[in-house]
Parts: sequence; C-alpha cells; structure tokens
Amino acid sequence: MANHAISACAPDASIESYIRHYAQCIDISLKQALASSNAHPKLLEAMEYSLMAGGKRLRPILMIAAAESLGAELERIMPVACAVEMIHSYSLVHDDLPAMDDDDYRRGKLTNHKVYGEAMAILAGDGLLTHAFYMATLAAGSDAVSLQRLMLVIREMAALAGIAGMVAGQAADMEGEQGITSLEQLESIHLRKTGDLIVFALRAGGRLSGASEAQLKALESYGYGIGLAFQIQDDILDITGDPAKTGKAANSDERAGKVTYPYFLGMDESRRKMHELTESAKQAVQQAGLPDPQRLLQLADYLMQRDR
Amino acid sequence: MANHAISACAPDASIESYIRHYAQCIDISLKQALASSNAHPKLLEAMEYSLMAGGKRLRPILMIAAAESLGAELERIMPVACAVEMIHSYSLVHDDLPAMDDDDYRRGKLTNHKVYGEAMAILAGDGLLTHAFYMATLAAGSDAVSLQRLMLVIREMAALAGIAGMVAGQAADMEGEQGITSLEQLESIHLRKTGDLIVFALRAGGRLSGASEAQLKALESYGYGIGLAFQIQDDILDITGDPAKTGKAANSDERAGKVTYPYFLGMDESRRKMHELTESAKQAVQQAGLPDPQRLLQLADYLMQRDR
Repeated sequence: MANHAISACAPDASIESYIRHYAQCIDISLKQALASSNAHPKLLEAMEYSLMAGGKRLRPILMIAAAESLGAELERIMPVACAVEMIHSYSLVHDDLPAMDDDDYRRGKLTNHKVYGEAMAILAGDGLLTHAFYMATLAAGSDAVSLQRLMLVIREMAALAGIAGMVAGQAADMEGEQGITSLEQLESIHLRKTGDLIVFALRAGGRLSGASEAQLKALESYGYGIGLAFQIQDDILDITGDPAKTGKAANSDERAGKVTYPYFLGMDESRRKMHELTESAKQAVQQAGLPDPQRLLQLADYLMQRDR
Repeated sequence: MANHAISACAPDASIESYIRHYAQCIDISLKQALASSNAHPKLLEAMEYSLMAGGKRLRPILMIAAAESLGAELERIMPVACAVEMIHSYSLVHDDLPAMDDDDYRRGKLTNHKVYGEAMAILAGDGLLTHAFYMATLAAGSDAVSLQRLMLVIREMAALAGIAGMVAGQAADMEGEQGITSLEQLESIHLRKTGDLIVFALRAGGRLSGASEAQLKALESYGYGIGLAFQIQDDILDITGDPAKTGKAANSDERAGKVTYPYFLGMDESRRKMHELTESAKQAVQQAGLPDPQRLLQLADYLMQRDR
C-alpha cells in the first residue's frame, strides 16, 4: 500500500472535505489492491466495474473515523478498510442478480450481470468476497498483540458479513418478500443486512487502534444507530428526494411494493425516529471516553442530513 | 471443537480405513461448526444440505495427511480442515447454478438451487465461503509464531481459492465454454479450478505443523500432481466407470460437449500421464525429508486407483 493513498485529513477540514478526502484515499487503495492482484483478466474487469462504480465509501470512512477517534495511525487499517468496501461491493453485485432483486441499474449504471452476464457477476462477487479476506491479512503486524487483534477482526468480519450477519439479513429479506408485516421484522432485516457491516467497520477501526471492550461496545451502538437512521433517510429520500441526486426515480419503493419506515410510521414519525437514533448514536460515542470523537459526531449528523 | 471429532487413526490401518476414519471426523466437525453458528435457519438448512451431501472430504484428509507427515497434532488444524471443505462445497453450489453449469443433480441428489431456489443457493454459497474464514480463525494459537503462521494460511486460502486461483479457474472455464482448443488450456483451468484448493489444503496442513519452505514446495508439487491425476481419472471413469459407483451416466462428458484428457490424448496416453503425475507427486514428498510421508504416498496411489 503506497503512502500517498493514506495522508491524514486536516483537522479543521469540513466534514464534506473529510469525506471527499478519504473517499479518494480509498479509491486509490482499492485500485492498487486490484492492480496488484494478478487476477484473471475478465474477472478483474467485472470486479473493478462494480468496485469502482462511485460508491460513497461510507464503511471505510467510518472505520477511519473510529481509528482517528482513538488517535491511531491510518496506515495499519487501510487494507481492512479496502476489505470492508469489497464485501459491500460483492453484496450489491449478488443482490442485483436476477434471482435476487433483479435490478438493471445501480447508481445510474448498468448492474454487473447486465454488462458481464450472470455467471461472471456471480464469480465477480465471489472474487470480491474472497479477496476481502486476502486484503485483511495484509494489515498484520509482527507482535502477538497486534496479530491477535487482527485475527479477531478477521473473525468478526466473517461473523458480521456472514451467516448470522449480512448474508442472514439478505436471506431474511428474500424470505420476507412473501410479506414483511411488522416494523420489528423490517428493522431486524436492516440491522443484519446493513447494520452489521457498518458495525464491523467501526469495531475493526477501534480494535486495531487499541479500543477497550467498553469503547468497542460504544462504537457498536453508534453503528447500529446510524445504520438504521441511514436506512430511514434512504426511505424518506425515495419519497421526497430529487431523483437527479438520489439516482432513483421518486417513489420507486412504493412502486416496487417495498415496505419502508414511512409505510409503517408515516413521514413525521419516521423523521422523529431518525433524529432520535442519531442522537443516541452520538451520545454513545460521547460517553465512551474516546480521545477524539469529533468526526464520528459530524458523520452521524451528515448522514441524517444528506440529500443523496 | 470437541475432542471426539479428532481421534488419530491407527498407524497400521489400511488407507481405506484411514480415509473412512478421517471423513467421519470431518463430518462430525462440520456438523458441530454449523450447529454452533447461530445462522439464519433457512440459510443454515440450505448450507447443511450441500455441505453434508456425502462428499469424499478429500481436501481435509489431504490437510490431515500433510500435518501427520510432519508428526503434528491434529487438533490445531481441524478448524482449517473444516474451512477448506466449506470452500469446496460453496464452489460446487455456485458452479451448479443455472447461470453456470446448470446442473440438476450432484452425487445423485438434487442440486442446492433445485431444492432451495436460486436466491437461497447463491446465499448458501456466500455463507459457506464467508464461514470458512470464520472457522479458519479458530485455529489460532496465542504466541506470535503460531499466529503469524495462521495469518499466512488465511492469506493463502484467500489467494488459492480466489481471483488468481479457484475463482479464476471457474471464470476461465466459463469463458472456455466458447471453445477449449488445447490440452494446455484445459490443464491451466484444472490447475486453478481444482489444483489450487488441493494445494492450499496440503500447504496449510504443512505450514501449521511447522514445515520448512522446501517442504511446503514439495507438498505443493505433490498437490498439483495428484490434482491433475485425479482429474484424469475422473475423465477416464466417465467413459469406463460403473455409473452405479461414479453416480454419473456413462459418457456424460462427451454428451455435454466437454473436452477431456481422453479427448486430447486418447485413453492409453491419458492413463500413462496419470501414472507419471502420480509417480512425480510421490517422489516430491519422498525427497522432502518429511518424518512420515507414508499416508501421502498411499493417498496418491489410492486416488489413481479409485473407481468412484
């Protein structure tokens, strides 16, 4: 991982600049990771198509912010930051498949299988998932403490992205298409499908930076809180957002027959809940004795106020 | 991992008993691994359906034999032995999908997607792949040397099962369906698609048991050799084998338009090549100064002589 990919962001930069800065760092690191991978050419092209399709890089940025909240250096965590983005990307490629959500477009571009065919899209997803674990091992130090920390991080990555976490969320979502009937059910799917990987990112950034168990718990509460708030804002933007910014046609959820927070709670109550979740998330990190939680607090507000 | 799953096989047991013994150990360990995983119920059922569908457990058994060739205890490696079988199982589930090989039966049972649907089969594969990495981390010791070894093993697992290894082999195979025109091309696909994971199993068993770099190289040569020999025997059995034993109709490759070793070389030359590969593989481990290579030698012969 070359150094230019990981310059620290200036402390007085706005949160927008902060996000832009680290999104660029991640983009560069991801490109380097793929370029040095010696992969099958067509497979690599399909993987790169989706990985470099202009994602927000939210999960790696949260990992970086968690590490910074403990005053840690970023160099160590960059391979794991790349790993979590690869996992996020694979999950989108597989979710878009005809047998799953059957989507033709994502972020205004054709989905992977529309460009490369279903077989290659399945393999591109498998490849991104597998390579995420390759990347994560590159964050290894040489002493027993840092090796043990990274081993736990890799285990949590597999757990939270896996069969009791993100993959379980997607499985429940597939089953739920036969009818999600309660807010609890909807929330349980979001917590697994979106929340778990966000929580992994935060805990990994914390653990690799020497967070205490109590601090890891606080980062976890923060993660589940902003994860749900993020989802509610997604649902709200689908109804009220500017399609030119969100990249989705207005009311696409309703037309797709998807149940959402506004569907269960109405718009006002959804907004109230989103604010409440964001405030609790901020409180969790404020009370955890983190040396510098500023960026985590700003990110929580930013995510709730975004318009895309 | 409870102890009854990992009793050592008697030194004077026949190779058939040896394989049966450790296949049972692996079955028990795999069942325990899934039972303790807290996974989504339907997803777990789909994973278990394919993982427990009566595979030969060849890769874990090779890992065990590699560890035994160095005189190592087996307890440490069992989680990694389970991991390699989970990866093998996921690869079959995804390979069978309609967008890939579109197979309705495997080992005489309906394929995963025929029973659980395509969406759940994709997720079962994703879940098995992810959980393999979870399992592998459970083999961790607490000292820096053993942690570093396991970190390298996990990295090699991702590399050899991934985008320059097994997944690359499957991608090349998919592309090759438009026409594999040479034996070199066929062999290159087999080396990635089958050889790499076998080599991973052997190197992992060796590395976790303290093998030297030269010994790891020898295990690797052995692995690629028996991997290709195994494939040739598969091709031969497709033509000459007893469908009741192989579980496949005779000449199914030819009818599916698959190119094979007999297609390129004829039957006699294919047999000669299989013997040559097996002998070279045996020589590699005989010359590596392994304390006890006996089971590796027996396994090489056994695989070549099998009738199913």
